[in-house]
Amino acid sequence: MSGETGVGRPTIEFWYEFASSYSYLSVMRIEALAAAAEVEVAWRPFLLGPVFMSLGWNDSPFNIYPPKGRYMWRDLERLCERYGLRLKRPSLFPRNGLLAARVACLGQDQTWIGEFSRRVMQANFADDRDIGAEQVIAELLAGLPLPATAGALLAAACEPDGKEALRRQTERACQLGLFGAPSFVVAGELFWGNDRLEDALAWAHRVPTAPGSA
Amino acid sequence: MSGETGVGRPTIEFWYEFASSYSYLSVMRIEALAAAAEVEVAWRPFLLGPVFMSLGWNDSPFNIYPPKGRYMWRDLERLCERYGLRLKRPSLFPRNGLLAARVACLGQDQTWIGEFSRRVMQANFADDRDIGAEQVIAELLAGLPLPATAGALLAAACEPDGKEALRRQTERACQLGLFGAPSFVVAGELFWGNDRLEDALAWAHRVPTAPGSA
Repeated sequence: MSGETGVGRPTIEFWYEFASSYSYLSVMRIEALAAAAEVEVAWRPFLLGPVFMSLGWNDSPFNIYPPKGRYMWRDLERLCERYGLRLKRPSLFPRNGLLAARVACLGQDQTWIGEFSRRVMQANFADDRDIGAEQVIAELLAGLPLPATAGALLAAACEPDGKEALRRQTERACQLGLFGAPSFVVAGELFWGNDRLEDALAWAHRVPTAPGSA
Repeated sequence: MSGETGVGRPTIEFWYEFASSYSYLSVMRIEALAAAAEVEVAWRPFLLGPVFMSLGWNDSPFNIYPPKGRYMWRDLERLCERYGLRLKRPSLFPRNGLLAARVACLGQDQTWIGEFSRRVMQANFADDRDIGAEQVIAELLAGLPLPATAGALLAAACEPDGKEALRRQTERACQLGLFGAPSFVVAGELFWGNDRLEDALAWAHRVPTAPGSA
């Protein structure tokens, strides 16, 4: 399955950040919804920090603007209840998602990307674990069908090529006009926010797939 | 019907601003959706300006942050197409909604509030008219079942009591934790954004109405 592009199926680019609360919801939901909608998911982990910096924010808007933050945590509670997801408010927010994002960037076209992303999100938002710690990420990688040992993968993620891959991906997020996460790109259309996931999937079937594209 | 509270039905507080693009969508949609959901609408026009000022913004975030603005206008196009609403991007954004909000504040418990609010929104977002102009508002009031002449209503809206009513309502918006529009308050729960209107209406039936409350 590695690198398989789902010939003939439309693709949704799924842009997410491991520290982002609403990204948690979409990471947990997207694989099943996309399968039901017959849409391929292109996982696109990136860093919100540089995007926020370019907008003049040096922290999460949920921290900078307290009313937005209070609303978000309550809203997240309601939504987790609706979706049947566990939620334990992280004792640190936003957590450092850098290492997880580098690892995910390396594996984004491989079969383990979905399960890895869900494990990291659950560690952060359901189990209040420090996803910035190498030991935690190593533990979350255990048992996944990796192309190498977890140790080798973690090492590769922190080598210049691994760092550069995530940097380029984050730059592309800015170029696409992203300003938050999760975001979805379908046939050149941008959708922002977990509550637009269904809309984005529906849009994938609204435009015809170019003949022969794979 | 004037002042009727719909005995036994739950109520949704609908907080909107005439200059707000996503408020346009909810103003056009809420009456039919609330009727179908058997929920009473308490119209709550207010001013976003003072709310944004309290967050440190001296303009709409859609102007301050260009990627957010570009996204919003495209998103609005898609949503207007979905809802069957006309859209003509206002040549000035945000428009001055002060006079319209003062008039609406005076009439918020009267039968003409829904139709008046829709007319103002269509003038702003479908016909690109200057809703800050007294002549435009006077024209939009024509034919509504007003308690007085349009001229008398406009005069009352700009007297100290009229100004104070809107000022108090906007202060209450801040106290409720609002940070944007449209917002909905149902049984103490806050919902933000046009795409949460359906959720807010559903929530109204989730909590029991207090016995005898009317």
